[in-house]
Amino acid sequence: MELTRKILEGDVRAAARLMTMIENGASEARAALKSLYAHTGSGYIIGITGPPGSGKSTLTDHLTDELRKRRKTVGIVAVDPTSPFSGGAILADRIRMQRHSLDADVFIRSMATRGHLGGLARATNDVVDVMDAAGKEVILIETVGVGQDEVEVVGTAHTCVVVSVPGLGDEVQAIKAGVLEIGDVFVVNKADREGANRTATELEMMLHMAPDTGGWLPKVYKTVATKGEGIAKLVDAIFAHKAFLDERDLRKKKGRERSERAFMALLQETLRARTVERFKRNGSMKEMIERVADRELDPYTAVEEILDKIGL
Amino acid sequence: MELTRKILEGDVRAAARLMTMIENGASEARAALKSLYAHTGSGYIIGITGPPGSGKSTLTDHLTDELRKRRKTVGIVAVDPTSPFSGGAILADRIRMQRHSLDADVFIRSMATRGHLGGLARATNDVVDVMDAAGKEVILIETVGVGQDEVEVVGTAHTCVVVSVPGLGDEVQAIKAGVLEIGDVFVVNKADREGANRTATELEMMLHMAPDTGGWLPKVYKTVATKGEGIAKLVDAIFAHKAFLDERDLRKKKGRERSERAFMALLQETLRARTVERFKRNGSMKEMIERVADRELDPYTAVEEILDKIGL
Repeated sequence: MELTRKILEGDVRAAARLMTMIENGASEARAALKSLYAHTGSGYIIGITGPPGSGKSTLTDHLTDELRKRRKTVGIVAVDPTSPFSGGAILADRIRMQRHSLDADVFIRSMATRGHLGGLARATNDVVDVMDAAGKEVILIETVGVGQDEVEVVGTAHTCVVVSVPGLGDEVQAIKAGVLEIGDVFVVNKADREGANRTATELEMMLHMAPDTGGWLPKVYKTVATKGEGIAKLVDAIFAHKAFLDERDLRKKKGRERSERAFMALLQETLRARTVERFKRNGSMKEMIERVADRELDPYTAVEEILDKIGL
Repeated sequence: MELTRKILEGDVRAAARLMTMIENGASEARAALKSLYAHTGSGYIIGITGPPGSGKSTLTDHLTDELRKRRKTVGIVAVDPTSPFSGGAILADRIRMQRHSLDADVFIRSMATRGHLGGLARATNDVVDVMDAAGKEVILIETVGVGQDEVEVVGTAHTCVVVSVPGLGDEVQAIKAGVLEIGDVFVVNKADREGANRTATELEMMLHMAPDTGGWLPKVYKTVATKGEGIAKLVDAIFAHKAFLDERDLRKKKGRERSERAFMALLQETLRARTVERFKRNGSMKEMIERVADRELDPYTAVEEILDKIGL
């Protein structure tokens, strides 16, 4: 296939075209993804997550600088909130990242967090696969890190970087706790702000509360992303985690988890789509939903009726 | 059924027991939900969403006060980040809400945002249904409002309140934009902070950019939730929206959307669970996932093989 061949040769425009097809849920995307799949699995996937305002985009930007200095090709998948009015990602941060846009070895793609029929996680997985097949050695996935799908996306990366900032209050601390278990490397960004040491200490204390299972011990790093401070050490930490995984053959295990989740997301989506398709033709599903809305039929019984008809 | 009967009589402990069953994905929950369903549909559902640190919990707390003054019974479903270590919601804000815990006409339930096999949206819908069946007149759903599932949950409420705060920077503005389309009432909380008027004006400008379709025109309100300021006006605004919906028979339409989404979420989950169950017995799905992880088989072809076997 022409599109597949071009992507494997590293053609950026061909890859971007396929990503748009993925985002739009176009069925042609499937054929291309099928033939690309055998060429995936060599990219190293890094998830970067943290609350809004923690400076993830700036951090990703500077991480990319450092990775380029170390001669790695980089793919960036930014999972963004979307404006319903503009129809696209509107982050000012994104614009800053465009300074990498002249570098052929950096590929940046923003994803909308909404409107993905069948789930954001599935679409993001597909886009990561395209970057992987296109030969990007390191793939950064940046998300706001709140929300089930988003956490799943970064949680299945090879290395997950959890970003925090000083003084965002209790609620944010709680969210940080929510992603503690998926973090391999922790960052207190904006570390020139008051309270940075306290935030770092608190984080370290929380990490020490986790049971020691003899595995990787996450550490806390301080950065000032806007000034590029602490970035080289952070990249060292990420590569130390990568080396840890490789030495113990754990990278394959992480990859397996990611494959399983991706498979399940795809299975679930396809099952629903195919079932809706089958029942749409004779209008019986629409009628059923009306009855559920009118409380004549409960949704559990309705779903069971459909599964009976399918024979599942 | 004993449990169902008790819940319909307003027994709080029975309702809490069913909610735990829902969260644990217990199959017994289905039977109870089936028989409760006919008794749902009278509760008025209000979604409250906003970024971390916007003071949603405090706002929800004071909204509850005001609703109780107006003699409404209240259910609160707080969709919280969860600590993997504590295994439960750890928000200090939650504790504050406990001052309502002696009021039998207020029912509070915190939900974990993670670990819901089959989706947070489905579990939250079920918990809302239980509160509805238990006779709560107003049901508040509070979420962090980032993430596909979370946005869906509040987006299908009868009235959706979007909370913002002054001066959280560009990234937060973008998230705010992401939920603009689902907001019916907008709040700038912490309005005693510098920049509150500017934030309110910016929000109003963004709202004016939306095409006027002759429908409800959302307005922006300022509150200082910690002092209870602006809460009565906010409740007035919510009830104005409720009246708007009722006058135009739109409440039924919104309810229908919610039913459809709930039905689809349940259908998708059940289809996946049933399919996995069928293929688990002979181990063929596990083998398939291994082959996908090893890049011997692409996930798209794998899923198609499974659908072929089912005959879908």
